[in-house]
Amino acid sequence: MANEPAPPILLQAVRGGRPPKPPLWLMRQAGRYLPEYRAVRARAGTFLDLCYDPDLAAEVTLQPVRRFGFDAAILFSDILIVPHALGLDVRFVEGEGPQVERVSAGDVARLDRPLDAAKVERVYEAVAAVRTKLPRETPLIGFVGAPWTVATYLAAGHGTADHADARLWAFADPDSFAALIDVLVEASVAHLLGQVAAGADVVQIFDSWAGELPADQFARWCITPLVRIVAAIRHTHPGLPVIVFARGAGSKLQRLAEALPDVTLGLDTAEDAVAVDRTLAKGVPVQGNLDPLALVAGGSALEQAVAHVTTAFAGRPHVFNLGHGIRPETPIAHVEQLVRIVRGG
Amino acid sequence: MANEPAPPILLQAVRGGRPPKPPLWLMRQAGRYLPEYRAVRARAGTFLDLCYDPDLAAEVTLQPVRRFGFDAAILFSDILIVPHALGLDVRFVEGEGPQVERVSAGDVARLDRPLDAAKVERVYEAVAAVRTKLPRETPLIGFVGAPWTVATYLAAGHGTADHADARLWAFADPDSFAALIDVLVEASVAHLLGQVAAGADVVQIFDSWAGELPADQFARWCITPLVRIVAAIRHTHPGLPVIVFARGAGSKLQRLAEALPDVTLGLDTAEDAVAVDRTLAKGVPVQGNLDPLALVAGGSALEQAVAHVTTAFAGRPHVFNLGHGIRPETPIAHVEQLVRIVRGG
Repeated sequence: MANEPAPPILLQAVRGGRPPKPPLWLMRQAGRYLPEYRAVRARAGTFLDLCYDPDLAAEVTLQPVRRFGFDAAILFSDILIVPHALGLDVRFVEGEGPQVERVSAGDVARLDRPLDAAKVERVYEAVAAVRTKLPRETPLIGFVGAPWTVATYLAAGHGTADHADARLWAFADPDSFAALIDVLVEASVAHLLGQVAAGADVVQIFDSWAGELPADQFARWCITPLVRIVAAIRHTHPGLPVIVFARGAGSKLQRLAEALPDVTLGLDTAEDAVAVDRTLAKGVPVQGNLDPLALVAGGSALEQAVAHVTTAFAGRPHVFNLGHGIRPETPIAHVEQLVRIVRGG
Repeated sequence: MANEPAPPILLQAVRGGRPPKPPLWLMRQAGRYLPEYRAVRARAGTFLDLCYDPDLAAEVTLQPVRRFGFDAAILFSDILIVPHALGLDVRFVEGEGPQVERVSAGDVARLDRPLDAAKVERVYEAVAAVRTKLPRETPLIGFVGAPWTVATYLAAGHGTADHADARLWAFADPDSFAALIDVLVEASVAHLLGQVAAGADVVQIFDSWAGELPADQFARWCITPLVRIVAAIRHTHPGLPVIVFARGAGSKLQRLAEALPDVTLGLDTAEDAVAVDRTLAKGVPVQGNLDPLALVAGGSALEQAVAHVTTAFAGRPHVFNLGHGIRPETPIAHVEQLVRIVRGG
């Protein structure tokens, strides 16, 4: 037993431990800022083709770990795989953002069905392929979009700045909206369990559009569904590390933390690290918070921004990450600089 | 003295008092949801023509007060009047949002000049015209955009979802960005003093795009300039009521409140009213927070949303308002319903 190696530092941190250095990975680390990603993307057909090609999805998942030695891989996939596997039309139009078949109250019943195995099995094959090729000491993160965030796309038929369609639906017809959320809770649980069964070590739930909601709506449409999902996956996999990233939670973060005392909380760029550290219970692991623009800027701006985050979270488990996805224009050299700073090299 | 009438309830609340009912006004209350506004807009030429026409600007300012008896008027104008009066090209393209002459480091020196009197005097004439026609017991609110928010337009040349241009400029060349902010601080003070001299009773500073900033950047580019502006106008007008609306402040609100202990804090829709009330010092006046979508929905959704806000803030001075501007699709009947609920009628 004494010779057993320490767990990977990401697993230490998300389980509430304090590894010697914070583990480091970046949201969207498999992405357009990498020339090797762009090369694969160019020969993959559509974006969805890439998501459903187990070999290519595995390859782009592995690229940033190979190049930077990040402390975790995150599956290359998309939060709209779930609605696609529920039978909805989903299209990614270059330069326009995703188009989704629009859903209204009358459509909810037909969405209450199992995920299309022909689609999701290809995602799970990608998970398995990554897990085989990834060093054993590097955890693999699976993910879904949270029900509220996915619902904002379904209600509008596309991405929106203010999520007005979903917000109005929720106000005007809460019963049918609750039915939609129920369908998405069930589908999210199924998709996370599928990824864990295939080899994911940790899961992250992205509630990217939670921020705009008033606190009582946030409680009903974000917190409650998130609690249900976490409970369901922990029922099957007790102790499975879960990261919940409710972007824009702001002053609502404390409610979220109280409802989910045993998850790692993802923090966006706008969250005040000092205030959050003062507010959250001691020992709650956090992830994120570095401004992706600081990484674009590099140099002393990056040094100062990293110091601000690491100093604020020096007293609790902290997974170093951005507060939002890495931007396509980010210079590779700045990612290398970040790795050096965080590793203290 | 005993027979002197009580001050208007808006002034009571922003001075830290607790009137029997919360005063009520709505951000963008002079706007497209009103048929009488659309009628004036249709004959006014461009949007800027309307802003610079004292009679028409005064007329649309007065319309919502006449129709709903709101407890304050807010001048019909725009936050981009300041850069326009600094000599920059500003255009409002229907359905596209504003286009502004893009500014970079080399342009800042030539912006360091007084506001163009030929432009701003027309705004002050509108203020004076409103003040003459408005019932004496109804306060008039003047406003500016905060330096950071105006800078996001100048850095990009247009509105942006993520304000990446300004954020990157601030990281990559903080000295020239600070010079731009200095220019905008001075111009904002001048424009607020001009409005107060013409008859504005209260001023509001809109930092609409403050939310995305990391806490240390928020401190430097939002809080410090806001403190300077408030100090400068209070130097000339001690005790002038000021409302600061830093949209998206979230967990950074406490920093803002500590730096500006004697202003009313505007709260966006996403701010957790219960958490804010717990965090802010007793007696600090707040404004806002109702979701504009609840007003679009009306009915019991609106009743519940109003109750959530008024209950949370029952123990402190509270100016009832939305957390963001009223939406053009808002039914007039729902505004009437809101007035009845807030007035307890």
